[in-house]
Amino acid sequence: MPTIAEIAEALQAEAAGNLSIEVDRASEPGTAGPRDLALALAPAWAETLARGTARAAVLWPGADWRALGLQAAVFAPRGRLALAGLTQLLDESPYPAGVHPSAIIDPTARLGRNVGIGPLSVVGPGAVIGDGTRLGPHVTVGTDARIGPQGLLHAGARIGRRVRIGARVVVQPNAVIGGDGFSFVTREPAYVEIARETLGRGEVPVPADPTWHRIHSLGGVAIGDDVEVGSSATIDAGTIRPTSIGDGTKIDNLVMVAHNVVIGRHCLLCGQAAVAGSSVLGDRVVLGGRAGVGDNLTVGNDAVLTANTAALSNVPAGRVMMGYPATRMDVQIESYKALRRLPRLLRDLAAGVPKPRKDE
Amino acid sequence: MPTIAEIAEALQAEAAGNLSIEVDRASEPGTAGPRDLALALAPAWAETLARGTARAAVLWPGADWRALGLQAAVFAPRGRLALAGLTQLLDESPYPAGVHPSAIIDPTARLGRNVGIGPLSVVGPGAVIGDGTRLGPHVTVGTDARIGPQGLLHAGARIGRRVRIGARVVVQPNAVIGGDGFSFVTREPAYVEIARETLGRGEVPVPADPTWHRIHSLGGVAIGDDVEVGSSATIDAGTIRPTSIGDGTKIDNLVMVAHNVVIGRHCLLCGQAAVAGSSVLGDRVVLGGRAGVGDNLTVGNDAVLTANTAALSNVPAGRVMMGYPATRMDVQIESYKALRRLPRLLRDLAAGVPKPRKDE
Amino acid sequence: MPTIAEIAEALQAEAAGNLSIEVDRASEPGTAGPRDLALALAPAWAETLARGTARAAVLWPGADWRALGLQAAVFAPRGRLALAGLTQLLDESPYPAGVHPSAIIDPTARLGRNVGIGPLSVVGPGAVIGDGTRLGPHVTVGTDARIGPQGLLHAGARIGRRVRIGARVVVQPNAVIGGDGFSFVTREPAYVEIARETLGRGEVPVPADPTWHRIHSLGGVAIGDDVEVGSSATIDAGTIRPTSIGDGTKIDNLVMVAHNVVIGRHCLLCGQAAVAGSSVLGDRVVLGGRAGVGDNLTVGNDAVLTANTAALSNVPAGRVMMGYPATRMDVQIESYKALRRLPRLLRDLAAGVPKPRKDE
Repeated sequence: MPTIAEIAEALQAEAAGNLSIEVDRASEPGTAGPRDLALALAPAWAETLARGTARAAVLWPGADWRALGLQAAVFAPRGRLALAGLTQLLDESPYPAGVHPSAIIDPTARLGRNVGIGPLSVVGPGAVIGDGTRLGPHVTVGTDARIGPQGLLHAGARIGRRVRIGARVVVQPNAVIGGDGFSFVTREPAYVEIARETLGRGEVPVPADPTWHRIHSLGGVAIGDDVEVGSSATIDAGTIRPTSIGDGTKIDNLVMVAHNVVIGRHCLLCGQAAVAGSSVLGDRVVLGGRAGVGDNLTVGNDAVLTANTAALSNVPAGRVMMGYPATRMDVQIESYKALRRLPRLLRDLAAGVPKPRKDE
Repeated sequence: MPTIAEIAEALQAEAAGNLSIEVDRASEPGTAGPRDLALALAPAWAETLARGTARAAVLWPGADWRALGLQAAVFAPRGRLALAGLTQLLDESPYPAGVHPSAIIDPTARLGRNVGIGPLSVVGPGAVIGDGTRLGPHVTVGTDARIGPQGLLHAGARIGRRVRIGARVVVQPNAVIGGDGFSFVTREPAYVEIARETLGRGEVPVPADPTWHRIHSLGGVAIGDDVEVGSSATIDAGTIRPTSIGDGTKIDNLVMVAHNVVIGRHCLLCGQAAVAGSSVLGDRVVLGGRAGVGDNLTVGNDAVLTANTAALSNVPAGRVMMGYPATRMDVQIESYKALRRLPRLLRDLAAGVPKPRKDE
Repeated sequence: MPTIAEIAEALQAEAAGNLSIEVDRASEPGTAGPRDLALALAPAWAETLARGTARAAVLWPGADWRALGLQAAVFAPRGRLALAGLTQLLDESPYPAGVHPSAIIDPTARLGRNVGIGPLSVVGPGAVIGDGTRLGPHVTVGTDARIGPQGLLHAGARIGRRVRIGARVVVQPNAVIGGDGFSFVTREPAYVEIARETLGRGEVPVPADPTWHRIHSLGGVAIGDDVEVGSSATIDAGTIRPTSIGDGTKIDNLVMVAHNVVIGRHCLLCGQAAVAGSSVLGDRVVLGGRAGVGDNLTVGNDAVLTANTAALSNVPAGRVMMGYPATRMDVQIESYKALRRLPRLLRDLAAGVPKPRKDE
């Protein structure tokens, strides 16, 4: 277990007091015991700290650690960043090195050094797994998939045929990378497209042959370095070229990335977000929770779609969008506010009142 | 197979006719055969009942069972409640007791009495499984997880490290409990926050170092008694304290509960609903289908978010909310109605008509 | 590997040039090599084609293949349809015939001819698998499930008890068919219904007994022929009759189909769409990405719900709907446009301007 000195060094942070105190784990201030490291990252936590019995804590800069009853303290100028370093330090690798005897490794697969393959995992023909990568139980790695070094694939992760994954990639439980794209075509021009064009005003002709013919997905998926894919997220294979996720992009649970999508570097796709087929996202794009991007669109670098926003047209670089259909955030908020005043306006106009009152 | 007398006793309901008739299963009235128990829970089903050949039925209170051509009847004052009792009676446990020889049980795991572990399931080091709990095939139970008695874990359920689960909990196929939280931080203040503050009007500075640093999830998940978790739902582990689900709360398919969330007792979270990081829900809260709660919010006891509602701020106790952003339901409906009248108002005003017509 | 002549025959398309050229795979025009078949399905791709070194291509009708520097060409009057035939031709079956020695097949299960069961898959008691159907690794087939011929079940697919699946059905990784429905009832009338009736204006009574009683799902799922179910999609079992999916319907990733739902033939349910309990969809219905249908509703034949649309009431046949709540698309677009003009209208009226300006 690390000492306060070791923690301070790992966080590149200043420390004070008895630096040889060892801690077992991090805790909330109010419930921290003598072998816990209390996390009181802002002055608001000072009072709560008194309720616990921690001897050591991570504190905001300038905190008076002695007055708080502590024997040692680490000072974190940026609390959440300290939390990143600290939780990494206190975490342990969840899976050991070595191939569990119940795992099924195809003889043509190649495993790097220090690889771990969990119980009942399957590694298919021609697959390659890089040095130090660890697989939990029940993981599937498909034919000819390539996984880089130092990765972590949790239970039930499904890596499809021909998927390429970079270094240090984390795949959460039951995520699916490389399932087939949702791509179908009718013999005649699709009535959906006709409906779109007429905005639903015209008659939609019933097709003589409504059969959907499947376009197979041959392109696989290409994932960069330092990517994370959340629990039960799905990233579909491309049609003839790979669906592509750039370095450092983080994808949350239940997110859907459709076939042929290209996502840049250092993007964040929060829970249940979705990018429809063939759309292209730039670098550092943020999709808030359940934000969606329609098919065949582009979203520029540094654009932000707030939670629940649905983009139905291209989004310029740096733009912050909100609503459905997505609109510039300030414009959308102005619309929402005006809408709240509309019922009274209608009543006032009906009653002959000349001007709307300035409410809200 | 149960007799009508046994069914009536189990449902604590009144019965009439030949109570010794045995039935094999419940059926819709129109397709019920002589060994089926027809379910005609309201007078609207009377006509349909004549099309089938059931000898016995569950009927609404006061129904004339003889006139309906039946030999026996059970009367259900509250139909859906009767359905609960009846379907439970007719269901059988899907998995037998005993450890399937293909399952991998770590020698340090402890199994209670009458436990069932299905084919190819994995129970990790230090895990504890309570009396009578049954696991289907392909279930993963992580290191040091504790599962209470009389539970049911279906195929592909993933129970992560250090997850605590109470008694009589049902986990549907491919649900993930205890995946890592989606928690990342940049070295500099995140540009997302800057964008939020300026509502997207200002310039969003491109960060010198856009790298997302991972905050590890050490807190696990704590789930109470009588909870149900739907197919492919995900409940993420907390950062340093557990994500928490109260007794009797029911969670539907594809729902996302993020890290550090606290959910009270007897809540309902319907399909695809989501609660973002660190938010707190009271007791008996209902989230309709695809309703969402933003991060770091509180939702009071007995609040209802109707389907598709997205709460972007705190919701008081007992409040019924609708829309995006979530608004009191009656206010939201008034807004929607006013919006439908707005195009005509704009036309009327442009044409110089003094008052809007009272349409709709 | 197929020749140009064979490809043209398979696509029922015209071809020109050296028809004996063999190709290994399809490629985008700009990156196609000498053994690739470049796909240039519209004149817009002509320029890009020059950057690659393909000898053969699929071209738009009337294209001058010699001028494009090619030695052979196939002409596709409907590009995406050609893509369907072509990708099928170039794809190979992902799983071999035969039962992998690590698979667990119950002795009472029956397998047809030429069936493939992947590593560590489980086929339960009484299950039946039709001729030529292939299961990947880690697939679960429940007790008494029946799967038709020529199907394809990918890794981690969960087929529940009593599920019936037709011919040529494709189930993508981690899809769940036949989990339990989300169906619960309180002893007293549910306060949610009371809240709905009062639109949230009245007081919601706190129930004396908030316990949710489970209605078990005994009805299974019935899936027709030629259906596809996407990655991590979930289709719940019906209560006493099966949840039902018609022939030729395609269901995308993370879609939720609730208990007792009936879906017609040749429908498309795009990513993250949802149909709540007991609703009925006609034939050829299209739900765009994340479109939702509330519970106990009907959606007529050929109706289209655009992406993100939420239907809270019945949708007539042939209607194109948009928005939340779902409204006829042209009406909804008019509302959106009017809403954008509303803030200025309010300002103008407050300032005493008699008529709104005709902007936008």
